[in-house]
Amino acid sequence: MSRPRTAGPAMRIDRYELTMLSSFVEDGSVGNRAVFEAFARRLPSGRRYGVLGGLGRLLPLIEDFRFDAEETAWLLEVGAITPATADYLRDFRFTGRISAYREGETWFPGSPVLTVEGTLGEGVVLETLVLSVLNHDSAIASAASRMTTAAAGRPLIEMGSRRTHEDAAISVARAAYVAGFDSTSNLAAGYLYGIPTVGTAAHAFTLAHHDEKEAFSSQVAAHGPGTTLLVDTYDIARGIRTAVEVAGPELGAIRIDSGDLDVEARRARVLLDELGATRTRITVTSDLDEYVLAALAQAPIDGYGVGTRVATGSGHPTAGMVYKLVAIADSPDGPLRPVAKKAAGKVSAGGRKTAYRVHDEHGTAVTEGFVLGDAGELPGRPLQLVVAEAGRTLHNPTLRQVREHHAAAVAALPAEARLLTDGGPALTATEARDGELT
Amino acid sequence: MSRPRTAGPAMRIDRYELTMLSSFVEDGSVGNRAVFEAFARRLPSGRRYGVLGGLGRLLPLIEDFRFDAEETAWLLEVGAITPATADYLRDFRFTGRISAYREGETWFPGSPVLTVEGTLGEGVVLETLVLSVLNHDSAIASAASRMTTAAAGRPLIEMGSRRTHEDAAISVARAAYVAGFDSTSNLAAGYLYGIPTVGTAAHAFTLAHHDEKEAFSSQVAAHGPGTTLLVDTYDIARGIRTAVEVAGPELGAIRIDSGDLDVEARRARVLLDELGATRTRITVTSDLDEYVLAALAQAPIDGYGVGTRVATGSGHPTAGMVYKLVAIADSPDGPLRPVAKKAAGKVSAGGRKTAYRVHDEHGTAVTEGFVLGDAGELPGRPLQLVVAEAGRTLHNPTLRQVREHHAAAVAALPAEARLLTDGGPALTATEARDGELT
Repeated sequence: MSRPRTAGPAMRIDRYELTMLSSFVEDGSVGNRAVFEAFARRLPSGRRYGVLGGLGRLLPLIEDFRFDAEETAWLLEVGAITPATADYLRDFRFTGRISAYREGETWFPGSPVLTVEGTLGEGVVLETLVLSVLNHDSAIASAASRMTTAAAGRPLIEMGSRRTHEDAAISVARAAYVAGFDSTSNLAAGYLYGIPTVGTAAHAFTLAHHDEKEAFSSQVAAHGPGTTLLVDTYDIARGIRTAVEVAGPELGAIRIDSGDLDVEARRARVLLDELGATRTRITVTSDLDEYVLAALAQAPIDGYGVGTRVATGSGHPTAGMVYKLVAIADSPDGPLRPVAKKAAGKVSAGGRKTAYRVHDEHGTAVTEGFVLGDAGELPGRPLQLVVAEAGRTLHNPTLRQVREHHAAAVAALPAEARLLTDGGPALTATEARDGELT
Repeated sequence: MSRPRTAGPAMRIDRYELTMLSSFVEDGSVGNRAVFEAFARRLPSGRRYGVLGGLGRLLPLIEDFRFDAEETAWLLEVGAITPATADYLRDFRFTGRISAYREGETWFPGSPVLTVEGTLGEGVVLETLVLSVLNHDSAIASAASRMTTAAAGRPLIEMGSRRTHEDAAISVARAAYVAGFDSTSNLAAGYLYGIPTVGTAAHAFTLAHHDEKEAFSSQVAAHGPGTTLLVDTYDIARGIRTAVEVAGPELGAIRIDSGDLDVEARRARVLLDELGATRTRITVTSDLDEYVLAALAQAPIDGYGVGTRVATGSGHPTAGMVYKLVAIADSPDGPLRPVAKKAAGKVSAGGRKTAYRVHDEHGTAVTEGFVLGDAGELPGRPLQLVVAEAGRTLHNPTLRQVREHHAAAVAALPAEARLLTDGGPALTATEARDGELT
């Protein structure tokens, strides 16, 4: 069959961005200086904090944000742009500055997690790409972060690829790793990002053989006794006996994917110990989320595999970030004036925000605040870094560094922020008045 | 910065598939004949039917399912495959048969929506890719289908790209179009799939100008009076007056994105009519879903834009399909024996299923059933087509044909299947005994 055309990152936007761009090109304002900000007005119900995900994916996409000749011709053909706008897009690349919270950082309602400074044209066309990446990856990272806390140090495997879009799945693995998961089942995530990958066998593997013993023997022959055997295709206790019979007491791990996992894990531990397999680990999977993980804390479990619920943000598959024009000038180098919408129910603070987080003497975050425009500095830790300048990425940490930053940022939150019980945001980003946070 | 490597569709799988494949290669069973089936055990709570999405995306991905030399070397390096498996993968391509429900078809618990017949090795490696595509696109199509019913003929725009992964967003637009949406905001979806695209302006557009009049004048100058003006940046009534003042009574449409949409639409209609703009359409957006659409049925609204809720499956972002080995032979051409897992809570019916839907004399679907293996035919409409043979796609309908099939399939459901009230599945796929559906 004929191969479909492909579309670059610049086509992953909403058409209205180009309708607006066309108007700006035609009315002469396209080169005026402008500032856009991404932030969330609220957290999902019950969540105490959010985690910023996706920044390391977004910056290269913005560097590659170009319209090729075929794309531009198509945009003109369907009437999405005017001829003058086609000329404008021909040489388009983003040449502005991006400031952002570090990836893995915690955020709260009002936190200005990403700021785009450039021309009006540059800012307006980035809206959807910025939001798609940040909303998706932050939703996953925010859910995964709670699961990491609930797992209390036990290793977590991300295995939700089959429950989400095949490309999103790779980003799910990356965001979960940032938020403390240890590995993923997704091979592309290992290949592209260096995330550790794991995976053993499905029930189909056992069913493809004449019996469990034949299946386990095949797996141990191919992968050695340190492998993980899935023991619940028929009867768990019989499965465990067969597994140890085949692999010996050096069997690496068993996996249980059904039943009451607390009860089954306790039974399995007793049986494994009786059989001399005292160092064989127990991994459980099957509809786990942060609440189930917390409930399994006392069971003799050595590792968890989490699928659907991490890949779908544990009930909140998108982070609710918006991207708003906050300041505009009347020329490419004129003074910025703050702008804000005033319609019912959606009031935004105008002006570019510079954010700080204040920690107490124990290092615990106690407040987050921002100043508007050029209103000076605040005491506290600056939350924003310049991550791109003149359109080029300046900030390119390793995924391991991002992961470490996340762990430190969550550890610095007040203890109640790590509770799974319902509650409001641990902090709220508020405007400082006269250099003081209230 | 250095350009990351890319990964083909074959790397978008879970590692355990290759662990199993390696065992099959080593134990000699990799070429044995096998049948795998994708189906959902249940519908999300309250849903009466599901819609199959993604088939037209999946088949080309399966045709392209190959491991290149760099990927194979990496898999070997990280221990995901054995050396003999690397040899097996070097020339791998899917050479089997795929049967499936048509894309856009309705499905129920137990419906065998996709069947893969080939070798054990071919079947086992496709699991995650099949499920990722079908689960994502079916979740979107299933939610969108209910919204199409609730919109009762009024045009629907899909505009959820910013609420989901940037690549998933393109598939969201496609699945929503299949299920009856009329257009999308996503440019890549227009470019790649020919879906009509629309889009006008955000609040940022108005805020970037000194006042609404200047903004509307710019938009009308660039796009003509037939454009859609966003009138709720400040005060809706004032916005409407300014819009008609600038564009004249031939103004194409206004968009309202905040407030009580029922009340605001009624007020807007009265005001537009007073101003002589009797043919100016009213489009509303802002947190719409199937329930809000149904509640707005009496308001004078001409079109809806739906974002977050369609892109996230309206509370159910994944369709819950699983992919199971249902029959296996002991050789490449031996007789198939049915297989099924028997552990607690996850019983699957073994054997390859051939499904039929029976309609009454009015054309309404009354039952769905299947026969196992070679147990003959049933009266009724066969639901499965051979969509790929010898690994090559045979079934390649246009998206318009898929969309028409969806509309016909939903229209043929019992009336209660189209209710938004909670309720169980309209039908359940059950095994026929002695050629009879019970």
